Amino acid sequence: MDSHIIWENDKLLLLDQRQLPFKKIYVECCSIYDVAKAIKDMVVRGAPAIGVAAAYGFVLGKINGIDDETIYNILINTRPTAVNLEWALQRCLNQYKDYGDLLELAKKIHEEDISINKQIGKNGKELINNGENILTHCNAGALATGGYGTALGVIRAAFEEGKRIHVYVDETRPYLQGARLTAYELMEDGIDCTLICDNMAGYLMRLGKIDKVIVGADRIASNGDTANKIGTYSIAVLAMHHRIPFYVAAPISTFDMSINDGSFIKIEERAPYEVREVFGTKIATDETKVFNPSFDVTPHYLISGFITEKGVICPPYGNFILEKFNI
Amino acid sequence: MDSHIIWENDKLLLLDQRQLPFKKIYVECCSIYDVAKAIKDMVVRGAPAIGVAAAYGFVLGKINGIDDETIYNILINTRPTAVNLEWALQRCLNQYKDYGDLLELAKKIHEEDISINKQIGKNGKELINNGENILTHCNAGALATGGYGTALGVIRAAFEEGKRIHVYVDETRPYLQGARLTAYELMEDGIDCTLICDNMAGYLMRLGKIDKVIVGADRIASNGDTANKIGTYSIAVLAMHHRIPFYVAAPISTFDMSINDGSFIKIEERAPYEVREVFGTKIATDETKVFNPSFDVTPHYLISGFITEKGVICPPYGNFILEKFNI
Repeated sequence: MDSHIIWENDKLLLLDQRQLPFKKIYVECCSIYDVAKAIKDMVVRGAPAIGVAAAYGFVLGKINGIDDETIYNILINTRPTAVNLEWALQRCLNQYKDYGDLLELAKKIHEEDISINKQIGKNGKELINNGENILTHCNAGALATGGYGTALGVIRAAFEEGKRIHVYVDETRPYLQGARLTAYELMEDGIDCTLICDNMAGYLMRLGKIDKVIVGADRIASNGDTANKIGTYSIAVLAMHHRIPFYVAAPISTFDMSINDGSFIKIEERAPYEVREVFGTKIATDETKVFNPSFDVTPHYLISGFITEKGVICPPYGNFILEKFNI
Repeated sequence: MDSHIIWENDKLLLLDQRQLPFKKIYVECCSIYDVAKAIKDMVVRGAPAIGVAAAYGFVLGKINGIDDETIYNILINTRPTAVNLEWALQRCLNQYKDYGDLLELAKKIHEEDISINKQIGKNGKELINNGENILTHCNAGALATGGYGTALGVIRAAFEEGKRIHVYVDETRPYLQGARLTAYELMEDGIDCTLICDNMAGYLMRLGKIDKVIVGADRIASNGDTANKIGTYSIAVLAMHHRIPFYVAAPISTFDMSINDGSFIKIEERAPYEVREVFGTKIATDETKVFNPSFDVTPHYLISGFITEKGVICPPYGNFILEKFNI
């Protein structure tokens, strides 16, 4: 897959994920405001990808002659749930003077993210056996990261090793990241996959057709409670009911050690029209009331393990889930 | 609500449910073949409504001069899961000679269905407390029956009695019966409701926002295992995990005492394009593999009670769930 985040001639080019898989159009961001709008409008989405885009946004902010604090505020207020946004911006603030060239730092954050994902893949692929059926939700792939992906990185690594695997892809309403992005990514790589509606996953589990669940994460509290795309929690409950392992694949930068548990995670609610419409087509009248949370929190006790670049964290997690890595 | 199944001048008019809520167009059925096509293409859907439409289809078959066996075969092969289709056709075969006029029998089946639903509503409304939030899936409303509805009949009866209730409506992919039909019906009647994507129900349960679940049924085995719209099983597991009562509202004609359990229920798989498209808009490429079961089976032990026109059946169910009514 081509990169979906490209820096070129003092501009940031972002592949417009709202148009995939039918149109491949890059949105040109010439200013920090363009980047902020692109994050808010979900041209780019996925916690690690948002972090990478924000780092380049920081560079554009400096080119635009804006002070650090304002840059931070413009970007941090685009989307509330993904912790990687905060992490990337803090890193820009703290380190760019050491680097001299802020662009070098942004590029480093981008490249590091890809190599971290490859390491996540390497650590996670051992959990996947030949011939398994894996369920994933939303898109935790190349398009959600600097490249390669977290949950899809694990699947890619197992596939690249020659393991025969098949992926069930939740379509992931309302934004359809599964149908539009994950199925697209897997098919581009030649990985066998089948698209389902979100409400079919439980039935597949009952039929014995799911061996493992792997998803990404947007923010993980210090006890392991995990915010991810809406619907993840339901899958975790269903997986436990059917005794199917449920894994979260995420870089260390997704762990937020400043919060004790999931109750402190702010859940973004998005506009009602996203539920009333599908890809621009209305499915309910404008008068229909809607609830549209973008994420939910899966409690740590439903999670069989966290696949990170430093290794796999297994239960019991304790109150400081990263202490095993001395973090 | 106006009737969606109308007999007029030797023709059957069916409100085209594929076009709701945006267009109200009746499909004119002049022959048994038109009726069979309308059932197959889901112009009319919902187990009891299919039964009623099939009875009128039987009348048209006789007007068309077709023999009983051929009529039965044409109609029974339209959709496999709803037992009410079989029940209505058997009743036409067995009883029409007693009636002389077959049309009178079809009208009687239609009217009886409405009064049965009102009795289901009467029996079920006692289970709903003032101020409760009720989750429903798919459409078990007036549009799924001869009129009034089963699950929505219970909700309607509680509302008509003055109980203040609020309904969360699962959109119900792929066909969106919730977004297009249930939200529409409830709003027409002034019943407060909120539309959600199917994958949000579990999160709402965790937030404590669901007090009860009520759904309809397409076929109920003699031990209580229940086939209903795909996604019902997942909701039942989630409801049990959160200790939320999960009720099935259905007429006695939905119970199939000829099968011991849910494993004998044939689950219809429909065309892949229904998942790849939403209301005519593509969301995935034509090359995307799809799994599209139209129903799933919820085992009896996840069901808190069956609301029928004869009363509410509570656990333990035994092997012959209708024996309480001497059926």
